[in-house]
Amino acid sequence: MSSDFFRSIWVDAPAGTEQLAPKDLAPGFRAGGVACGLKDDGRTDLGLVACDSDDVVSAILLTKNAAAAAPIRVCRDQLEQDSIRAVIVNSGNANAATGEQGIKDALAMRESAASALGFEPTQVAVAETGVIGVPMDMDSVLSGIDGLAGSLAADGGVSFSDAIMTTDQWPKQCSVTLDGVTISAQAKGAGMIEPGFATMLCFVQTDALIEDPDALLRAGVGESFERITVDGQMSTNDTVLLQSSGLSGKPLPAGLLEAVLLQLAIEVVRDGEGATRVGRIEVSGAADDDEAAMVARRIANSPLVKTALLGRDPNWGRIAQAAGAALAGSDIGDLGPDVIEASDLAGAAPEAELSLKLDRGDGRAHVYFSDLTHEYIVINAEYTT
Amino acid sequence: MSSDFFRSIWVDAPAGTEQLAPKDLAPGFRAGGVACGLKDDGRTDLGLVACDSDDVVSAILLTKNAAAAAPIRVCRDQLEQDSIRAVIVNSGNANAATGEQGIKDALAMRESAASALGFEPTQVAVAETGVIGVPMDMDSVLSGIDGLAGSLAADGGVSFSDAIMTTDQWPKQCSVTLDGVTISAQAKGAGMIEPGFATMLCFVQTDALIEDPDALLRAGVGESFERITVDGQMSTNDTVLLQSSGLSGKPLPAGLLEAVLLQLAIEVVRDGEGATRVGRIEVSGAADDDEAAMVARRIANSPLVKTALLGRDPNWGRIAQAAGAALAGSDIGDLGPDVIEASDLAGAAPEAELSLKLDRGDGRAHVYFSDLTHEYIVINAEYTT
Repeated sequence: MSSDFFRSIWVDAPAGTEQLAPKDLAPGFRAGGVACGLKDDGRTDLGLVACDSDDVVSAILLTKNAAAAAPIRVCRDQLEQDSIRAVIVNSGNANAATGEQGIKDALAMRESAASALGFEPTQVAVAETGVIGVPMDMDSVLSGIDGLAGSLAADGGVSFSDAIMTTDQWPKQCSVTLDGVTISAQAKGAGMIEPGFATMLCFVQTDALIEDPDALLRAGVGESFERITVDGQMSTNDTVLLQSSGLSGKPLPAGLLEAVLLQLAIEVVRDGEGATRVGRIEVSGAADDDEAAMVARRIANSPLVKTALLGRDPNWGRIAQAAGAALAGSDIGDLGPDVIEASDLAGAAPEAELSLKLDRGDGRAHVYFSDLTHEYIVINAEYTT
Repeated sequence: MSSDFFRSIWVDAPAGTEQLAPKDLAPGFRAGGVACGLKDDGRTDLGLVACDSDDVVSAILLTKNAAAAAPIRVCRDQLEQDSIRAVIVNSGNANAATGEQGIKDALAMRESAASALGFEPTQVAVAETGVIGVPMDMDSVLSGIDGLAGSLAADGGVSFSDAIMTTDQWPKQCSVTLDGVTISAQAKGAGMIEPGFATMLCFVQTDALIEDPDALLRAGVGESFERITVDGQMSTNDTVLLQSSGLSGKPLPAGLLEAVLLQLAIEVVRDGEGATRVGRIEVSGAADDDEAAMVARRIANSPLVKTALLGRDPNWGRIAQAAGAALAGSDIGDLGPDVIEASDLAGAAPEAELSLKLDRGDGRAHVYFSDLTHEYIVINAEYTT
């Protein structure tokens, strides 16, 4: 772990934030990962995080996809829980479109992890990612859980982070401390990334005292994972989990969780399938913030804008076209370069700041997005999934 | 022109329909094209169609893009007109994001063509396509119009069709006859193609007697150009114009106009930027037809489905994911292969029929779409526009 976890031009970590080794979890947590055999290349594919404190508080956000996978359906049990003690994750099989058997398998994973850890099943969340429509190899998963539960460690952050990756090129993880509070976090991308909230897996542990974890997580995700898009596709399996052991006895420093979530979200975009650059489109002057977000997302998902980001073409006309399409049926004039800033598209930097000023009100929003590249097509067309 | 204009598996021309040479316009019309110098490679770039009959009836549909180009704003004068006598088209400059000067230029084109033909300016439509944000070279355009107006011919269909192409690889045109009525038509693509209606230029001439051209055109476009997508981008310049001279004295044979519009729409998809295959996704069992269309469009615009069409990957999970995203917030179960037909994705044929059966009602809709290819990225990232 380098000391430059916060390395996007768009992320400001609070002054005084220190980097810890990403293997070191927030106090009160243990984690780990093993290879149970779901991935045929021998990489680790099963991860587990557990909190040792009875006073754990938690919040979980789940994909809104209407064809949600079995683990999402099982995790709905956790939505009203403020004490998710543990999460079991497999990265070899999404357990999506697997019918009733999929539900049974996700429940069996949950019960197996709960039993091994001495928790109630409803205190254990299940997250899964990988191939769709393939029955789970439950013998491998259940024997994997048995071994994994006995090997968790306070310095198991990297082991866990590695175990949740699929097509990610690098792990997305950090451990940071400020004012006596620690946050550790691990996330994975890399395709099917679209605002509409989570659209990936992210696990956050802290020892801060948290009063309203749901509101805290929702607000943080609203400014991070809800602001990103790679390919406009909403996964069937996305999950964000926040857990706190409360062991520090101190409140969360302002801005620390938000900075961690935003950096991880930008890492997910940066490592989006085939991505080489990250853009940020800021729309202001919309009728309201929702309209601004809708226009920004339309621009961020435009294949013409995404190929201009790749091709370093400062083509403001493509931004105008996408904005006009987003507001189809209205009349916003023929937007010109006086209201569109697109020169960063042509720049050498890996990050490009774009903006559009409308004249409809005070609404404002921004979205981070990746470019559309040949590698995206190679990944998605040339390998059968 | 081959005799197989109706060559999609999805188009049924009425029995007895005969092909004419595409150069031959419907009786009562003359057309032509010239190179006025807007395209620097010397290709023709200015086209004109005029109707000789005082009894012309017409209908025009314009893009809903909120940042519409100057010619669209000028053509709004024609929306209430039932007698558009002529249309002047340039394919070198979109005259979009050109401000007040752009409006003046489009008006000058209209007046020049009207004057040369002896029509009222409001009887002349203007359509433009090409580069965005660049001032018009009006000297070239106006002197081009002068020469062009004097050279129109009843067999100028191909000349006109050639003159409206931009990145199209082939002209999209036909002339067909049935029951004493002729329809000739010319269209162009090839990027920024998305339902929400027109999203390209299309001009249709007929000698049939037509009572309600607006309703006729709207219905025909609703089943053709509103059902296609290449890249989900809505152009600032799209226009569909139907004109009838009425000279045959006979009504339109049932299904003939619809077949022409659908074949042209599918030709636009087939020649979409970089496209190699055309898919048709049919969604049934939706709450209503609008919901079915929304879901079908989301599937048709999914880069994961579009790369599966390219890669011949019968990946029904991607269709499930896109449908679930379209209906985010609801619960439609974890759609499996029992309700998704995706095997054509893997087939050798250039056309693939896909379907999804929901269980929410009787709504039904379909959308035609192209694959997403390396060539799309080459066209849009590697050439500055």
